[in-house]
Amino acid sequence: MKPNPDNKHSIATPTHTPQLQAFCEVVESRRSIRRFTDTPIPDEVLTDCFRLAMLAPNSSNLQPWEFYVIDDADNRKRAVKNCMNQNAAKTSARLIAVVARTDVWRDHAQQVLREYPDKPVAKQVKDYYTKVVAMDFLRGPANVASVAKWGATQVFRRVKGPIKSPYYTFEDTKNWATNNTALAAENLMLALRAYGFDSCAMGGFDEPAMKQLLNLSDDQHIIMMIGAGERADNGVYNTQFRFDQTQFVHYV
Amino acid sequence: MKPNPDNKHSIATPTHTPQLQAFCEVVESRRSIRRFTDTPIPDEVLTDCFRLAMLAPNSSNLQPWEFYVIDDADNRKRAVKNCMNQNAAKTSARLIAVVARTDVWRDHAQQVLREYPDKPVAKQVKDYYTKVVAMDFLRGPANVASVAKWGATQVFRRVKGPIKSPYYTFEDTKNWATNNTALAAENLMLALRAYGFDSCAMGGFDEPAMKQLLNLSDDQHIIMMIGAGERADNGVYNTQFRFDQTQFVHYV
Repeated sequence: MKPNPDNKHSIATPTHTPQLQAFCEVVESRRSIRRFTDTPIPDEVLTDCFRLAMLAPNSSNLQPWEFYVIDDADNRKRAVKNCMNQNAAKTSARLIAVVARTDVWRDHAQQVLREYPDKPVAKQVKDYYTKVVAMDFLRGPANVASVAKWGATQVFRRVKGPIKSPYYTFEDTKNWATNNTALAAENLMLALRAYGFDSCAMGGFDEPAMKQLLNLSDDQHIIMMIGAGERADNGVYNTQFRFDQTQFVHYV
Repeated sequence: MKPNPDNKHSIATPTHTPQLQAFCEVVESRRSIRRFTDTPIPDEVLTDCFRLAMLAPNSSNLQPWEFYVIDDADNRKRAVKNCMNQNAAKTSARLIAVVARTDVWRDHAQQVLREYPDKPVAKQVKDYYTKVVAMDFLRGPANVASVAKWGATQVFRRVKGPIKSPYYTFEDTKNWATNNTALAAENLMLALRAYGFDSCAMGGFDEPAMKQLLNLSDDQHIIMMIGAGERADNGVYNTQFRFDQTQFVHYV
């Protein structure tokens, strides 16, 4: 790749600003930490990390995420057990269930309109949240609306051209909520790192047991458990590596 | 909440390090940008942003993500159309399809073992990637293995206690890949911001048409399109807001 001196953003010219440098350090120093020290995470720090988590981009600002901080001693004991007693849970200062919700899109669409800061709310914004969003998620009893929607989409695509893919099934909505919530989870883990703390995202847990413990409904999906705390000296288990970028990035 | 002067991480004491400050600025200044200027994103910058994206945590380091940068003029024209001609796509310097793969877990498990940096590779690591991962994703023809796995899980849970929830269906695997890939997508968008560029994550696109354009299989799922470039003065469409944190964060 040739350096491009005419471009003000080229890294051939010095654009490694202190801000970029600091951001790289946060991302590069984040590792999945499996053992934490006894140092607690202050509530104020955690609150600010959640604030940063919730600044993640999300579809139509519908915010389908939720976070359960399991602090109660008895709940924690059971939650650690549901994480198969792994050290990242057992030694964590805070143990957090990250939840994606499939049942909040309708209420949140209304709440967006109520709390919309740019007044008066434009008609196209109102229409979007009352009509477009509803049509996007609508499934109807026994998915009957989904079938009609699928048929209409096929016809529209042939006659008019591209059309936004709507959500047909419960799994589509779950995937949508998971996608959005994971964006916030990544912000949360990076924010903890920026505060000098660390995390371990765990997929290894008993989801039905954890849902029972947290009293979650069939519309609340634990997409990951996060153990958080201060990194112990023996907290990193192995050397970090990734496959070569050319395996994943395609220029087409 | 009381300040806690004994805790070295308390924000009551000055822990707003320059690094934290810089990280907050990156996260807080990221907005979904709908109009970009003509300034290109240099290849070196994009390459480094993908490097930072791929440093996101991911399940068992199986890296189920993929990124298609649509640079070819004709492909781009069709891709913009598939994004319903929205400005965030049309004016972007780069248009990127973020793809989650459901077909790479087996190959990547083998590749992890081949490229594992800590030699000799411990037996428990070998066992994990050859046996545990395979059992986790195994579905078998017509999901017959999934049914057996489900039954075994139920029995184990009753007799022995908590057990990690395995993936039973294609949708479970898709959800797993989406979850992991979204973590990388968030890093990508923040990295662009740290480099002085911006992004817009789009869910509004015609997925079947886009998959056809990119020649993707049924195991490659476009979880979002990202338009990227330099923020135009009229690039932000509305005031940012989120619902109150107490609606989302529960201490249990």
